[in-house]
Amino acid sequence: MSQQRTGPTDGPDFPDLPEATVARLPEYLRALHHLAEQGHDTVSSEGLAAAAGVNSAKLRKDLSHLGRTGTRGVGYDVSLLIDQIEQVLGLTHRRAVALVGVGNLGHALAGYAGFGSRGFRIVALFDADPGRVGEHINGLVVRHIEDLPEVVEQESISIAVIATPAHAAQHVTDRLVAAGVTSVLNFAPCVLNVPEGVDVRKVDLAIELQILSFHEHRKSALTALPPVQKPGRVGVANRLGGEAVGS
Amino acid sequence: MSQQRTGPTDGPDFPDLPEATVARLPEYLRALHHLAEQGHDTVSSEGLAAAAGVNSAKLRKDLSHLGRTGTRGVGYDVSLLIDQIEQVLGLTHRRAVALVGVGNLGHALAGYAGFGSRGFRIVALFDADPGRVGEHINGLVVRHIEDLPEVVEQESISIAVIATPAHAAQHVTDRLVAAGVTSVLNFAPCVLNVPEGVDVRKVDLAIELQILSFHEHRKSALTALPPVQKPGRVGVANRLGGEAVGS
Repeated sequence: MSQQRTGPTDGPDFPDLPEATVARLPEYLRALHHLAEQGHDTVSSEGLAAAAGVNSAKLRKDLSHLGRTGTRGVGYDVSLLIDQIEQVLGLTHRRAVALVGVGNLGHALAGYAGFGSRGFRIVALFDADPGRVGEHINGLVVRHIEDLPEVVEQESISIAVIATPAHAAQHVTDRLVAAGVTSVLNFAPCVLNVPEGVDVRKVDLAIELQILSFHEHRKSALTALPPVQKPGRVGVANRLGGEAVGS
Repeated sequence: MSQQRTGPTDGPDFPDLPEATVARLPEYLRALHHLAEQGHDTVSSEGLAAAAGVNSAKLRKDLSHLGRTGTRGVGYDVSLLIDQIEQVLGLTHRRAVALVGVGNLGHALAGYAGFGSRGFRIVALFDADPGRVGEHINGLVVRHIEDLPEVVEQESISIAVIATPAHAAQHVTDRLVAAGVTSVLNFAPCVLNVPEGVDVRKVDLAIELQILSFHEHRKSALTALPPVQKPGRVGVANRLGGEAVGS
């Protein structure tokens, strides 16, 4: 996905951005808000890149897609750039979000302060468990999943967060889509099938740790003493038991 | 990062994998475990690709890095491929993980069942708030952050999860690194600076929603009625107020 463009149908009134750029714009926005809070009016591309943890050439290229490349010797106007990125990301109004599944993780997400301060209002909580329905979390009452269509329409909800067990997530997604939701953030460890026009982002917490585990494993392989290569011997035992692919 | 290789120093006994491949291996693993539970002994590349939500050509290329490309007409041996991916990811033993910050989100992560079933044991919880220290969560007692060096050594912890507020995350990271932790999963909405040899993965929940917001904004821009283009008129008002970059 990372280099896929957002679609050939994009008109001239909407920037045609690579997916990877779209994913970095929120990082720039977060860094810019932080700079604004610290009283900075302008920032260099190097300064912003460092604050966002991104390479500065990549940042300049990303921002050039927005048609703004900063002023040489001055840099970027912080508040202008904030406005511009917020406009592109559609953050000029707070978006209503529904959350489905108020177990351990869903409960925490329902109370996550970072959503409110960064463009989103969780306006509805759902669960399939009658024992959970009626529970108050963070000022909201948990509704039964049966009420989805009614609430999604009432609250103009287009984005939903799924924090159900994996086995329930596809069914919940189908109901969300039928009710008119067109973007889903999926925390359930499974692949969701959605019709065209519906966007899915996924966060699988164990996968993040497994990627780190790879790096741990690699680092320990690299720091292990290399086997002595005797003349006439070729190669080193491949711990994968297959053909290694070199760089 | 997505196309960055894992490093020029990789020896022949460790596969040289593109970052994007490393990130997809856990997805294949999740799909393979699911297939195994359903009683499948073999799977075609198309079947596995569909189960993992990935394009099948990409999957074949990813798995070819492991030196195993399946048997024509038979496909992949499910349990062999599970073993092989688990070996590459370093999941042949359960890794000990520390979690720092047991607020709302940290509390949920401490009880997240998906870690235990997929290769990780959360063995220690830390917080800086004396009011939290001593609390029991999921069979563990919250320790004070001062105890980090001792516990990290005792429990052979190399991976830590940070679920602190953003303002505390860098300080916590510095302490983790000083104690010997070499991989960090960061849930705090900020950039972490770490020395070489330390890997960081980040999950910013609001950023995921902001990316979906972009897609919502784009979809509504695309479905809005296009302005009538009269002969002699050029272009359409650019809602970004800058130069749009075409595709």
